[in-house]
Amino acid sequence: MPRYRLTIEYHGGPFVGWQRQREGLSVQGVLEAALARLAPERPAVQGAGRTDAGVHATGQVAHCDLDRRWDPFRLSEALNHHLRPHPVAVLEAACAAPDFHARFDARYREYRYRVICRRAPLTLDAGLAWRRVHDLDVAAMQAAADLLTGHHDFTTFRSAHCQAASPVKTLDAFRVWREGPEVFFHLGARSFLHNQVRSLVGTLERVGAGRWTVSRVAEALAARDRAACGPVAPPDGLALTRVSYFSRQE
Amino acid sequence: MPRYRLTIEYHGGPFVGWQRQREGLSVQGVLEAALARLAPERPAVQGAGRTDAGVHATGQVAHCDLDRRWDPFRLSEALNHHLRPHPVAVLEAACAAPDFHARFDARYREYRYRVICRRAPLTLDAGLAWRRVHDLDVAAMQAAADLLTGHHDFTTFRSAHCQAASPVKTLDAFRVWREGPEVFFHLGARSFLHNQVRSLVGTLERVGAGRWTVSRVAEALAARDRAACGPVAPPDGLALTRVSYFSRQE
Repeated sequence: MPRYRLTIEYHGGPFVGWQRQREGLSVQGVLEAALARLAPERPAVQGAGRTDAGVHATGQVAHCDLDRRWDPFRLSEALNHHLRPHPVAVLEAACAAPDFHARFDARYREYRYRVICRRAPLTLDAGLAWRRVHDLDVAAMQAAADLLTGHHDFTTFRSAHCQAASPVKTLDAFRVWREGPEVFFHLGARSFLHNQVRSLVGTLERVGAGRWTVSRVAEALAARDRAACGPVAPPDGLALTRVSYFSRQE
Repeated sequence: MPRYRLTIEYHGGPFVGWQRQREGLSVQGVLEAALARLAPERPAVQGAGRTDAGVHATGQVAHCDLDRRWDPFRLSEALNHHLRPHPVAVLEAACAAPDFHARFDARYREYRYRVICRRAPLTLDAGLAWRRVHDLDVAAMQAAADLLTGHHDFTTFRSAHCQAASPVKTLDAFRVWREGPEVFFHLGARSFLHNQVRSLVGTLERVGAGRWTVSRVAEALAARDRAACGPVAPPDGLALTRVSYFSRQE
């Protein structure tokens, strides 16, 4: 049975998250409904990252098996047709190896978090960024990000609902930079814990606002205690931007 | 009576346009409704540019008179409070000279038009850009933009509903550039005719797509005939980005 790999973009606003749930609209659910229009066997879709309610993606990856062989371009066009009017789009479809697994084969995941520092409420960027009315100290936040980078027990920065077997993860990249009134965070790791990105960004925001010292972040990490975490940043500013795989040739 | 100058951002999607109309929600209307919450005399708002339905602004300017004297910062905060939940925000309020007029004193207006070239429907940028499924030749579009720049009779590029006394305008700036899959247009002039920006961009898009030659654009301009215009680009990609005034010191 031919397997396909899909690269997917979506606006997280109207969804309960990536994952199908008993109630509410999920990204996985609308993708499976679109696939069911093409494939009577009603194929399931497996995503690389289970983004939360309201979290966006510009580079989510998923796989699915179809009984019929499809030209990948025609598959993406047909899916995009049936995905309307949901804000979900297949950016690319490709033939995959029969044992390719979007979630378990993923070697690197990248997230971007966007903050806009200004007094006025957001209009064009509403739902697409976190507004902070105070300015943020990027150098202080980068110092805190540096000490969080690496191999750590991230118990402080994961949700109580996290199902991962171990809280120990390697955070490979955590960069903070400014573009005019906007502040961006880039995080990269093989995998993340539930709510880890939003917990880390929310804690750094406290540093940027001058409310937390960098050493308090070090203490919070060392505490391995969820209660030591800063506020969790809202989903609006977060997007899963890329999932990378080792190519079969490597 | 103290006069105030407001710099305003809005998402054009839910509005019939800037201008108050008999039916439907206008940006001017929701601003006046917010002002009425602060000022029982129900002040009118005069805007610099009457943007069409669906057209955005990141730097619209307007003025209004209030019986009471307001601290400008408090005025912007109070207006933003009462503007909710509409996607309209006051970025800045300032005291203005008693004879300052947002529309008649404006010396330079700037618009930005954003195109995204890709097959997949837009999700995060839906309503914020014009999607074109083919690529666009930026060099050819810039050549056409160059011949449209300057002092011309723009009859071809104005709406039949345009109320301007003369179709002769000076287009000072018309630049086209690419950023990855996106193409941007920047236009600057003292004033524009109704639908001029969208008519010019829609015509250039035909050049970028290889359907029109640059010389056909020259012929269309020379024809001074609305029927010679290319298709009018949709409002989604358009934003009024800045309105400039001579300072009183000049």
